[in-house]
Amino acid sequence: MKAQIISVGTELLLGDIINTNAAYLSQQFASLGINVFQQLVVGDNESRLFKIINKAYQETDVIIATGGLGPTKDDITKEVFAKYFKLDLVYHKDIEQDLIHYFASNQKNFTKNNLKQAYIPENAIILENNNGTAPGIIIEKDKKIAVLLPGPPDEMVPMFQESVIPYFKNKTNQTFYSTTIKICGVGEAKAEEMVADLIADQSNPTIAPYAKLSEVHFRITAASKSIEEAKRMIKPLKEKFYQRFGNSIFGEDDDTLDSVAVDLLKHKSLTLSIVESCSGGLLTSTLVSHPGISSYLKESIIAYNNQAKIDHHLVSRETLQKYGAVSKETVLELAKNIAITSKSDIGLAMTGIAGPSGGSKEKPIGLVYIGLYYKDKLEYIELFLKGNRQKIRERTMKMALNQLRLFLQDND
Amino acid sequence: MKAQIISVGTELLLGDIINTNAAYLSQQFASLGINVFQQLVVGDNESRLFKIINKAYQETDVIIATGGLGPTKDDITKEVFAKYFKLDLVYHKDIEQDLIHYFASNQKNFTKNNLKQAYIPENAIILENNNGTAPGIIIEKDKKIAVLLPGPPDEMVPMFQESVIPYFKNKTNQTFYSTTIKICGVGEAKAEEMVADLIADQSNPTIAPYAKLSEVHFRITAASKSIEEAKRMIKPLKEKFYQRFGNSIFGEDDDTLDSVAVDLLKHKSLTLSIVESCSGGLLTSTLVSHPGISSYLKESIIAYNNQAKIDHHLVSRETLQKYGAVSKETVLELAKNIAITSKSDIGLAMTGIAGPSGGSKEKPIGLVYIGLYYKDKLEYIELFLKGNRQKIRERTMKMALNQLRLFLQDND
Repeated sequence: MKAQIISVGTELLLGDIINTNAAYLSQQFASLGINVFQQLVVGDNESRLFKIINKAYQETDVIIATGGLGPTKDDITKEVFAKYFKLDLVYHKDIEQDLIHYFASNQKNFTKNNLKQAYIPENAIILENNNGTAPGIIIEKDKKIAVLLPGPPDEMVPMFQESVIPYFKNKTNQTFYSTTIKICGVGEAKAEEMVADLIADQSNPTIAPYAKLSEVHFRITAASKSIEEAKRMIKPLKEKFYQRFGNSIFGEDDDTLDSVAVDLLKHKSLTLSIVESCSGGLLTSTLVSHPGISSYLKESIIAYNNQAKIDHHLVSRETLQKYGAVSKETVLELAKNIAITSKSDIGLAMTGIAGPSGGSKEKPIGLVYIGLYYKDKLEYIELFLKGNRQKIRERTMKMALNQLRLFLQDND
Repeated sequence: MKAQIISVGTELLLGDIINTNAAYLSQQFASLGINVFQQLVVGDNESRLFKIINKAYQETDVIIATGGLGPTKDDITKEVFAKYFKLDLVYHKDIEQDLIHYFASNQKNFTKNNLKQAYIPENAIILENNNGTAPGIIIEKDKKIAVLLPGPPDEMVPMFQESVIPYFKNKTNQTFYSTTIKICGVGEAKAEEMVADLIADQSNPTIAPYAKLSEVHFRITAASKSIEEAKRMIKPLKEKFYQRFGNSIFGEDDDTLDSVAVDLLKHKSLTLSIVESCSGGLLTSTLVSHPGISSYLKESIIAYNNQAKIDHHLVSRETLQKYGAVSKETVLELAKNIAITSKSDIGLAMTGIAGPSGGSKEKPIGLVYIGLYYKDKLEYIELFLKGNRQKIRERTMKMALNQLRLFLQDND
């Protein structure tokens, strides 16, 4: 099965919106084993869209189009597909009811133009929209498939998950099952080298490496007749990854460094306090994105200024003078003192030079120390991070999360 | 002049990369007055790319292609365009020298495959790459123009700014000049209503509204023979915006709420300390992204936990018990006390309910207080913010920045 993705919307052609839908859909289709042949962006223009649809079906069986399903005159996607397939638009009384109900329960004013969304090409499959007004539509005719989805990602993504994936899984006899193994603390080149033999041998399951900031991911995908069979095929390969990368693997699939660290804190019922400096709140902000974190994260001080570090009794003037703010001595004092003053189980501290100025030969830009304190136990890591100010700050956050989760995994 | 944007790269078709280049180029072309007709994404496949180029030139004069200029076998863009235009590839000794120099000065190992990048279609214009290895290329033949740029945005964007914009400004006799007016504190619908007459009357200059999170931008563009003339045409319209929006306008063009606030702090030589709660470090982290902020931002406490607020003498137990953590009384105490304990000129505090739980009828999710203290003067705002946890946190950050810059603008 070959597919094309058509994103409809003049706002995309003007560059006012970044097309995240196309990337999402491409990734999803890759997991479904459907080959995406081309992505296209076209404005809200009937004759252009008609020509493009016509051309696309000469090359592919499946078109997935996003955008242009709404209530305004500019929304033309459904109408043009109906015209291409020579299908009438049929008014659905039940969709009208859904629309009126949606507006009432969201305390919005219902306007008549919304009823345009109740017209659906005859014989089409209707996909419920639980996050907006325009229903999705699947048309099957003459061995061609059109999947029409709303443009806003917060409507499109859930609809794809709820309705489109089951539809295609049912179509293709094969089931694809993927799992992603996530690694932190091993560089991209080194990580690929460590599994070079497995990558060279791959056929089914396949292995695809992805380099992320301070992380390397490997997606393992098996094609089979059932999910159970696919999982069985992946298992021995997965075990090899665990043998080779050990605790550098921080999680799988939807796991993130922060979700793993937060889960470990919750699981062990430990409280944490933080001192940030160059990272300037990035770490705390990431942790706070998890609901319920207030039971585990007691406080965070962004002691950007040396005097603030002294005033909060986080480090002595002597240590700062003798070793400097960016030193292992300072970071260890910060970690210990924030734990003690905040009465937290764990103290986590970071200090570093993010640039663009402030570096020296002994302490270059990118030098970062991360310190951790727990029950009289102190540990630190020294890092030489690459990149601009923003990248160094982000890497500092990632490495601190990694140190925290490694510590929580290793200690009881 | 009509253009198409072709992004080349299998990684885009697999959804591993989000296509930010297409949005950037579309926006740039809109400013240049060049109409973008279509965006296309195609894999690293010679015959596909050739067909697409052929089709595109039947509809448009200009193709801008990104990606596929590098040293590997998969990089085919230049070769396919040369084939389409029937041009030989010519080896450039000076590019070879540049490449060798680039690798030496970036302490990277030079490998021979890099020399592929020294081949350029005959008679083409070579665009210097100051941030990577592959030069950009402009081909002009048979009234058609091809602009080939490297794929990585950090190479493509500077090359576009340095070489491609001057090239097209020279081509089109018209010069386009745009300025963007940025507003915070007025909703999108309200803002558009306030200038509905100006939008209805527009021809040249044109007015385009853009809604951002907690911000509304209006881009005013004039087409003329000279930049001076275009600026003159924009001036009276701009004045009308200032008359109508007053101090809700926080800046123009590259200004951001944080850059404006940081500039005001620097200009007035004032120091700031912050207490964050639901925003969890987002505000501090945004400020810390500005180099040199350490002279103005003394400290930030993310007192996520009520006890931490008390321990740091930021708020009394009585106030917390009587009014709750999310109240105007608490936020004003936090703002005042952080300024005093940190010996800063300004204290800025935020407290709110970001959800998904923790809301009540009196204090719903989205209720946020922002307080500000300066020289015995205290002020607060009460907000009812919409959206999920992340959106509420981001809006809190934006509104706090806005309150800070309004305060700094109004007070001396």
